[in-house]
Amino acid sequence: MSQPLTTVAGISFRHPPPLCSFLFVIVLLVATFYTLHHPDATPPHLFSPNTHNSLTLRRLFLSSASNATVSSYLHSLTRHPHLAGTKPSLDTLTYVLTHFQSLRLDDTRVAEYEALLSYPTHISVTARFTNSTTVEFDLNGDVSSSSDVVTPYHAYSPSGSAQGSVVFVNRGEERDYRALEMIGVSVRGCLVLARKGETLGRGVIVKIAETKGALGVLIYDENDGGGLGGIERGTVMRGIGDPVSPGWPGVTGGEKLSLDDDRVSRRFPKIPSLPLSLHNAEILLASLGGARAPVEWRSGRVGSSQRVGPGRVVVNMTLQGEMKMKKIHNVVATIRGSEEPDRFVILGNHRDAWTYGAVDPNSGTSALLDIGRRFALLLESGWRPRASAVAYLNVDCAVQGSGFFAGATPQLDNVLVDALKLVQDPDDVTLTVEETFKSQNNIIERLSRVDSDFSGFLHHAGIPSIDMYYGADYPVYHTAFDSYDWMIRNADPLFHRHVAMAGIWGLLGIILADEPVLPFDYIAYAEQLQAHRDAVSKLLEGKVSVDPLSAAIQEFSLVAKEVTDEAKKLKEQAYSKKDVAVAAKRRELNDRMMLAERGFLDSEGIKGKEWFKHLVYGPAAEPESKLGCFPGIADAIETNSSEGIIKHEIWRVTRAIQRASKALKGGFT
Amino acid sequence: MSQPLTTVAGISFRHPPPLCSFLFVIVLLVATFYTLHHPDATPPHLFSPNTHNSLTLRRLFLSSASNATVSSYLHSLTRHPHLAGTKPSLDTLTYVLTHFQSLRLDDTRVAEYEALLSYPTHISVTARFTNSTTVEFDLNGDVSSSSDVVTPYHAYSPSGSAQGSVVFVNRGEERDYRALEMIGVSVRGCLVLARKGETLGRGVIVKIAETKGALGVLIYDENDGGGLGGIERGTVMRGIGDPVSPGWPGVTGGEKLSLDDDRVSRRFPKIPSLPLSLHNAEILLASLGGARAPVEWRSGRVGSSQRVGPGRVVVNMTLQGEMKMKKIHNVVATIRGSEEPDRFVILGNHRDAWTYGAVDPNSGTSALLDIGRRFALLLESGWRPRASAVAYLNVDCAVQGSGFFAGATPQLDNVLVDALKLVQDPDDVTLTVEETFKSQNNIIERLSRVDSDFSGFLHHAGIPSIDMYYGADYPVYHTAFDSYDWMIRNADPLFHRHVAMAGIWGLLGIILADEPVLPFDYIAYAEQLQAHRDAVSKLLEGKVSVDPLSAAIQEFSLVAKEVTDEAKKLKEQAYSKKDVAVAAKRRELNDRMMLAERGFLDSEGIKGKEWFKHLVYGPAAEPESKLGCFPGIADAIETNSSEGIIKHEIWRVTRAIQRASKALKGGFT
Repeated sequence: MSQPLTTVAGISFRHPPPLCSFLFVIVLLVATFYTLHHPDATPPHLFSPNTHNSLTLRRLFLSSASNATVSSYLHSLTRHPHLAGTKPSLDTLTYVLTHFQSLRLDDTRVAEYEALLSYPTHISVTARFTNSTTVEFDLNGDVSSSSDVVTPYHAYSPSGSAQGSVVFVNRGEERDYRALEMIGVSVRGCLVLARKGETLGRGVIVKIAETKGALGVLIYDENDGGGLGGIERGTVMRGIGDPVSPGWPGVTGGEKLSLDDDRVSRRFPKIPSLPLSLHNAEILLASLGGARAPVEWRSGRVGSSQRVGPGRVVVNMTLQGEMKMKKIHNVVATIRGSEEPDRFVILGNHRDAWTYGAVDPNSGTSALLDIGRRFALLLESGWRPRASAVAYLNVDCAVQGSGFFAGATPQLDNVLVDALKLVQDPDDVTLTVEETFKSQNNIIERLSRVDSDFSGFLHHAGIPSIDMYYGADYPVYHTAFDSYDWMIRNADPLFHRHVAMAGIWGLLGIILADEPVLPFDYIAYAEQLQAHRDAVSKLLEGKVSVDPLSAAIQEFSLVAKEVTDEAKKLKEQAYSKKDVAVAAKRRELNDRMMLAERGFLDSEGIKGKEWFKHLVYGPAAEPESKLGCFPGIADAIETNSSEGIIKHEIWRVTRAIQRASKALKGGFT
Repeated sequence: MSQPLTTVAGISFRHPPPLCSFLFVIVLLVATFYTLHHPDATPPHLFSPNTHNSLTLRRLFLSSASNATVSSYLHSLTRHPHLAGTKPSLDTLTYVLTHFQSLRLDDTRVAEYEALLSYPTHISVTARFTNSTTVEFDLNGDVSSSSDVVTPYHAYSPSGSAQGSVVFVNRGEERDYRALEMIGVSVRGCLVLARKGETLGRGVIVKIAETKGALGVLIYDENDGGGLGGIERGTVMRGIGDPVSPGWPGVTGGEKLSLDDDRVSRRFPKIPSLPLSLHNAEILLASLGGARAPVEWRSGRVGSSQRVGPGRVVVNMTLQGEMKMKKIHNVVATIRGSEEPDRFVILGNHRDAWTYGAVDPNSGTSALLDIGRRFALLLESGWRPRASAVAYLNVDCAVQGSGFFAGATPQLDNVLVDALKLVQDPDDVTLTVEETFKSQNNIIERLSRVDSDFSGFLHHAGIPSIDMYYGADYPVYHTAFDSYDWMIRNADPLFHRHVAMAGIWGLLGIILADEPVLPFDYIAYAEQLQAHRDAVSKLLEGKVSVDPLSAAIQEFSLVAKEVTDEAKKLKEQAYSKKDVAVAAKRRELNDRMMLAERGFLDSEGIKGKEWFKHLVYGPAAEPESKLGCFPGIADAIETNSSEGIIKHEIWRVTRAIQRASKALKGGFT
């Protein structure tokens, strides 16, 4: 995660696409591998797809790997903290820009945006105990006096003071407040103390506390930043994107709303919040009076003797922050395709960091810089991508620890696994990444999350996407310890995992850009939709029929089979480059496979968060959504809506799937 | 106009596209000229675009014209009244289907829809005068006892009785009610009598009367159906499309809302309305007491002695109707393109009629049937369209009288005029249609109207469109006199105008389907946008700046110039069919020109009528909109919205134009 508008290294950008015609979104998002305007200027195609050297090409790409270069990139990028909109962040812009320019790719440019960013100026938390002793907490926590890391804060938290008794609310979920009600505890007029859990983001914790009448929120993490006393920074803004350009691109000179505009002000919390170190949190926890914590809260460091308050301690939290319009930048480097000028594969990552960003996001940035270096080598050897695909390949935190993890839209499952087969496991030279992946998690996640850079590409623009990372998570997330030093001590001493990720990422780019017929598998998508349908129908316990959905998925599945056969036939003719008719058919089939995902978009979007247009994958309002798919249906069910509303949401998804079928089938209906 | 869901002859359909992903809309709307799946099955290309016979081809098409066939088609189609959903309407389906099947085009199919249609069962209007005489009006008016023409009615008017004094409200515009207020006359609790004017549709007349507290509405037309006593039928439903499938396709088996659902019920008027013959209206007008009609109302048959009521006469109107779910059908015939399988030119017209439909719509249907016949001849000669374009060519009332009239999205202005140059003027053999058009009106309208079949294609789907008709208007509109007999006596005795329209229409289809590089002129579009910008800024009298708009248009204009040069260069290479690289570039440029129009779409749509997505052309809420373009800005200005709202609407159009520029420019931004 990062501040809402952040900047990107390499072949993509971070901004959510504007709320507008999807057509434009497609035009805006399609990136890289642009055609040469003077074909005669094309170098000899040693590796052109009509020779059968694609395997050789992939081997050449893999053999050009280097952990030395990756580590040097990461070291340079993480020398200083580089929060978005600060001078050191501008330095990383220069560094990345210079790198890509030195590679002499076809085009390297900077796109400038102007966004409202949030920084802390002064924060303090003072606790007064019943024995009338007063403690002023040290809030610098993980920041050494010498360092220029930003003090731990919540971006976009309102400035001001809040004073009151403290109530411990466990994870801060709705059910936690229900549990407190049961024992007669209200948080109205109090400050709440919450421990970061798995399910809720800090923004939601604050939002729920606000609705319960709390005056302020303190959030701590039992992981204690990996036992180092790290404190998690992050945003508590609602929605994504520049707050003063809600739904459209925050370009310099574009429309900016004023802060008092409701469309802006509603995106900020009304009560202040701060992250607290485990050490400080436990001082408060120890002093709490009141009832004992509900039994079901007992876990981790919360024991049977824990009390929830209020009482025995009154806390005053004061927070001064400033919001400033800052210029931020994307770097976009493009390699032109030889055959399809307007079809693109996008490799994306952001560049700015909350602190040093060794994991988040520059492990991804350094991998992308190395991919750039290696693509440049391929170009020298005469390679040019055909660029037949449209896909977005996202890597944010490339390396957090051990074990390969990935999410994808289902039609990309197989091509992803194929790429894993070609890459050596960084932790066991005798195995491929595919072999360890299969033996370990072996689950490709679905991309309903909004906490990384694929959200705008998939949820708003309907672009088939992949998201990848090494390590399930990591303890120093958004803390001052997210540093190069931490990386080499804990996550990737020899940068083999970086190399593996760069290999997988780059290969996927090459495969998607070179295959004359897109390696999209819509049969896999159909099977996934069936599984999602079953989950919905289970949740509904037969109260509402899912028959329209079933019929639409069945049709989708039939079309998927037809298209798979059609693709197989075309692949056989695919290399006869000279034939215009074959090229036209190939292009048409590729367009259908590319546009099918767009069929899942609905211009009305998801109720209450209309910027999210994808009806299969996207954020459900309920943080504890049981479905993880069909967000509109999930919301309708989990907010106990009327049967009519649930039915309508089922119909909307039904029509979305019908649109995808029609797009995939092509022709006139 | 016709009932909201009506059926189509020929190569298109009448249904507004569904409210959903624009991508789907494109996939759904793209029609006709589908590629052969077995190129080897293609006949020898006597007229393939890479030989230079396109002019020969166009001559061959024109020489195959025949007024005899057109007139016989029209005669067969109009033998019986064929209101949508009735048996005779099904007969026209069979007739059109059989015709296209007999032509052995590549594919001819029927698409079935199920829609809620409205029919009258019993109507009566009784007037009681102060002299206590009572008159029951004869409402059959233009319907002879023998005929099976539907009695004059307003579709979707609620059933029920209304009784009250009568007030004459002139055209029924807001300003007319203001004028009545000035002389102390309120219509609350009364029935209003309105004469059909230029500006307001019957639906809006009823809507305004409803807001003023009237109990019922009687509408008459001073034209008296061309002096024949004709009475205008038509719908008073709000919005377009099947009322029980608001915003999505009304397909059989699709989602249908119940009548009591607010999204359905709000589309029907709350007070009953009926059309009245001039004869009956004047009986009421003559009997009215009360104040004299405002001076500015004096025109036509309203003289200085006219009084507005209320008083002297009480009217009871009773209306029983029924709404039924009816199956209705589109006929879609397709000719496959030889080169671009997935690019389409759509020729569209509807088929159902309020009465005999000789003008509306079957003058268009018969022309389209003849175009089909003549295309079949071209196919026999070996012609196949390349089909590079996406455009919708609409002809509803092909012939209403004399004089050629057309509307278009501006990039089609020039290709339209070029086609006119190739067609002989039906009323003067020494001239071309282009020459008379230039010497007469010489204005190409802009398509902000929603009263014909192009609305869904342009306003929702963003497809470049043309609309054409002969004759400014005609007196027997929607009356029982809209018959074959009336056509040959009044509008087109020898069917030369039908032939001319078929010639222009078919030629445009051929040109757009055959030109390797689209003949779209975006410089013309840029100039039109500048003119629209000037109109806005005049209306704003400098109160709000239009600078963002100006900048966006300037950029659009620059891109348009670049693209024009690029197109010129490509045209020179265009016929070297064997070259894959040239074909790819051509395809890519054509895609950009096709998608640029889609850039004007905004997924939020126009405020209050969100189904309309096009921000340059579309319906403004104010019926008397002064702009005729930028409906969102027009609404904001004419409803005296705050400066902030007007600014935001200007920004939305600005971004739409920027999207169009980017789509036109292509590449990555």
